[in-house]
Amino acid sequence: MRNTRPYRYEELARFITELVDSGALAPGSRAPSLRQISRQRRISLSGALQAYRLLEHRGILEARPQSGHYVARGGMLRLQAPKISKPPARATTVSVSETVVELLEHAADPSLVPLGCAIPSPELLAAGRLDRLLARTARRGGMAYNSYTVARGDARLRQEIARRALHWDLALDPQHIAITCGCTEALMLALKAVAAPGDTVIIESPTYFGLLNTLETLGLRALELPTDSQSGIDLNALEKALENPAVKACVLASCFNNPLGCTLSEQKKTAALDLLAERGVPLIEDDIYGDIHFGGERPRPFMALDRRGTTLYCSSFSKTLAPGYRIGWIASPQHLPRILEHKLALTLCGPGLLQAALAEFLASGGYDSHLRRLRRVFQANVEQMIRTIDKCFPEGTRVSRPAGGFVVWVELPRPLKSRELLAQALQRGVCFVPGDVFSAGRRFANCLRLSCGYPWSARIASALELLGGLARAAARERA
Amino acid sequence: MRNTRPYRYEELARFITELVDSGALAPGSRAPSLRQISRQRRISLSGALQAYRLLEHRGILEARPQSGHYVARGGMLRLQAPKISKPPARATTVSVSETVVELLEHAADPSLVPLGCAIPSPELLAAGRLDRLLARTARRGGMAYNSYTVARGDARLRQEIARRALHWDLALDPQHIAITCGCTEALMLALKAVAAPGDTVIIESPTYFGLLNTLETLGLRALELPTDSQSGIDLNALEKALENPAVKACVLASCFNNPLGCTLSEQKKTAALDLLAERGVPLIEDDIYGDIHFGGERPRPFMALDRRGTTLYCSSFSKTLAPGYRIGWIASPQHLPRILEHKLALTLCGPGLLQAALAEFLASGGYDSHLRRLRRVFQANVEQMIRTIDKCFPEGTRVSRPAGGFVVWVELPRPLKSRELLAQALQRGVCFVPGDVFSAGRRFANCLRLSCGYPWSARIASALELLGGLARAAARERA
Repeated sequence: MRNTRPYRYEELARFITELVDSGALAPGSRAPSLRQISRQRRISLSGALQAYRLLEHRGILEARPQSGHYVARGGMLRLQAPKISKPPARATTVSVSETVVELLEHAADPSLVPLGCAIPSPELLAAGRLDRLLARTARRGGMAYNSYTVARGDARLRQEIARRALHWDLALDPQHIAITCGCTEALMLALKAVAAPGDTVIIESPTYFGLLNTLETLGLRALELPTDSQSGIDLNALEKALENPAVKACVLASCFNNPLGCTLSEQKKTAALDLLAERGVPLIEDDIYGDIHFGGERPRPFMALDRRGTTLYCSSFSKTLAPGYRIGWIASPQHLPRILEHKLALTLCGPGLLQAALAEFLASGGYDSHLRRLRRVFQANVEQMIRTIDKCFPEGTRVSRPAGGFVVWVELPRPLKSRELLAQALQRGVCFVPGDVFSAGRRFANCLRLSCGYPWSARIASALELLGGLARAAARERA
Repeated sequence: MRNTRPYRYEELARFITELVDSGALAPGSRAPSLRQISRQRRISLSGALQAYRLLEHRGILEARPQSGHYVARGGMLRLQAPKISKPPARATTVSVSETVVELLEHAADPSLVPLGCAIPSPELLAAGRLDRLLARTARRGGMAYNSYTVARGDARLRQEIARRALHWDLALDPQHIAITCGCTEALMLALKAVAAPGDTVIIESPTYFGLLNTLETLGLRALELPTDSQSGIDLNALEKALENPAVKACVLASCFNNPLGCTLSEQKKTAALDLLAERGVPLIEDDIYGDIHFGGERPRPFMALDRRGTTLYCSSFSKTLAPGYRIGWIASPQHLPRILEHKLALTLCGPGLLQAALAEFLASGGYDSHLRRLRRVFQANVEQMIRTIDKCFPEGTRVSRPAGGFVVWVELPRPLKSRELLAQALQRGVCFVPGDVFSAGRRFANCLRLSCGYPWSARIASALELLGGLARAAARERA
């Protein structure tokens, strides 16, 4: 029951966008007629019309009366994608924690335009329905839930998670799942299960600052791999990194890495699993963005391709449904006993009532249609964000093209510093995340991450224009 | 606004119980007449009658028609209190984690008589009212709460916590408080803020097994102090332990230590704070049972007596209101920045909606009357539990007399092993916590902890009689 495909018209819109981005359809040139494209791509005429209207709305096509559709003059992206990162090939200690606290302060400040933390707009989430189920669960069984849960967490929620995972070919035993306080606790438990203070962990570069903060708290060293914004980590670099005997784990995004948006092909995933298995190094995968795929198929996680059963799988509902519920999970047939011991020492257990309400929500079947709506909004946001950056930011800026998730990575031309830009932006009521928190060695000083978690609006458009203006001014000063 | 005094009749009942326990009122002797005691203790005649009826109900007094009240034959406790513990004077590694997981499994199994984990019966908690406030909070502001909170947690809840702490002379700045996932995360964060793997931590002996599990997970060594079931730790032993330069922290219960129930006098608390300050070792205090005091006054925590501001204060609402909400807190003016950094790495933040509902509950003012009811029930349970143990358990058993909280510590005559008793008890549907998980070195093999968190019932009485019978049979075999 794979019902995660986007609508056909969205696929068509994406196809045309790719032709424009690659230059195959030049600015000002005539787009295929509706009749033509409908026949070629096997889509109804009304579907094709819907796609073209979407592309008009996004500023990629222009309709000329009596003449058809043309590629807009600003339709092709001027800006290139980021180059593959080049981190040092040695392990480093991590030091980002003192800057992470303020990011959450920004996120909680409603006076700032929310381009910082990767939190979806509450308006986009199914909060109302979930909260009604919470109220009903409390009314019917509140007393029973006002106690500690078993260490694994609510049994029905674990069943629902296992049931959903089957959609992307991941067969999980609910007994091998533990509910956690978001993906943060899941990653913490995964790392504690396989690595000890002083050990080295292989990571992507750039990578999620929360992971770096967790490495720092655990006294783990980071070995960053060169990572491309489309194709992900460099396998040769992985092979070389695995020669370091201090390496005890590797953490990779299952797909749509935060902040680059890259996804490894299945071939690369299998090759990476083989390399890791040769050296006996377990993989910890973070699949938190997996449900937000813009393409038709949800990418399969490493665990679905791992026949050895050594992968530790982490995810959560924070990006798609309920960041406020703080419910994530970890799955690992091999390491669960140690994970549970550590979980009891860290947090004992989570709030059973919230877990029960979420299980009820998943069982009631509205999650898939909610996800379809959410993906459409996030994809539109991301595309609009990239187009606006393309228009406003200085020459030489590079920008990622994620195929899922809702963050965009921007490389400003050197020697611009995103920290200096942030100081100016905060004064004008705009926040974002500076690049240097995405690397153990505080590199990426010229980069920034923008969140597309809020529906596109005039407020967001002008915030982005402001950022572009500040960056252009800084570039002129430096020139 | 100290409204935490028990009713006068309860104070009188406790006074008479102490006279009986100490032998000042011998079994079979005549109790003071109602008129006499009413005059002596300055209580109304009806209050005195209420106290005597309570004592009759508890089996301490017997009413004889036309003759007055007499001390029941079984009124004086046969069993002595536990002797002061004698742990080794050196630091040891901790190894209890693998046994802690199963304790929560027992707690979640409704087929077992709940004498194990220290969880209050949901029926005794104000779950209905709290859940109604939760539903209302979700309805009114659910969308706003479906996001991440700042690292410290909900501002209003922190204000309410600070407001309540003033009742027991503890002046807390809400900015110095962080909301945590129960007292477990609070203790974890406190230890991480001041100690690193390999360091040594001074603790009570016996102490809460969850604390031991946290020490183990953090790679910390434990140095256990001799601890008396009434007067708490031995200050000379503390002084000597502080000579060890590896000692980086000391964790003590603020009052009603779990499992012994002991509380340090204010004089001893001040002396302990002075000793720690001399060596520059911070105190971490666990005040989770503070609200469940059987005496008139809530014991003041160390932090209220600490003029240096180096104490880290941990507590939670799990024992008195909402174990299912998983809301605790940590307060420390000095260490909060590091605590917040670690909190983000461990769990990011907690569920804001639950925190908001709890703040609403506290602000609405029903918590104090709830606590008064709860204390009465727990005190009655503890007294009934001790009396039943006194009747059923073998000669030479020792039992604690806690002045608060809701656990009782039992020392069986050696060489009886509580693990063997537990195996038999589980087969008969009864659980408790064996003594060996309360010490880093797995001592106290002849001890067990019983929870009095559920109202007294025939089911609990017969479970206790069963345990007594099993222990007596084991004692006979060994004789």
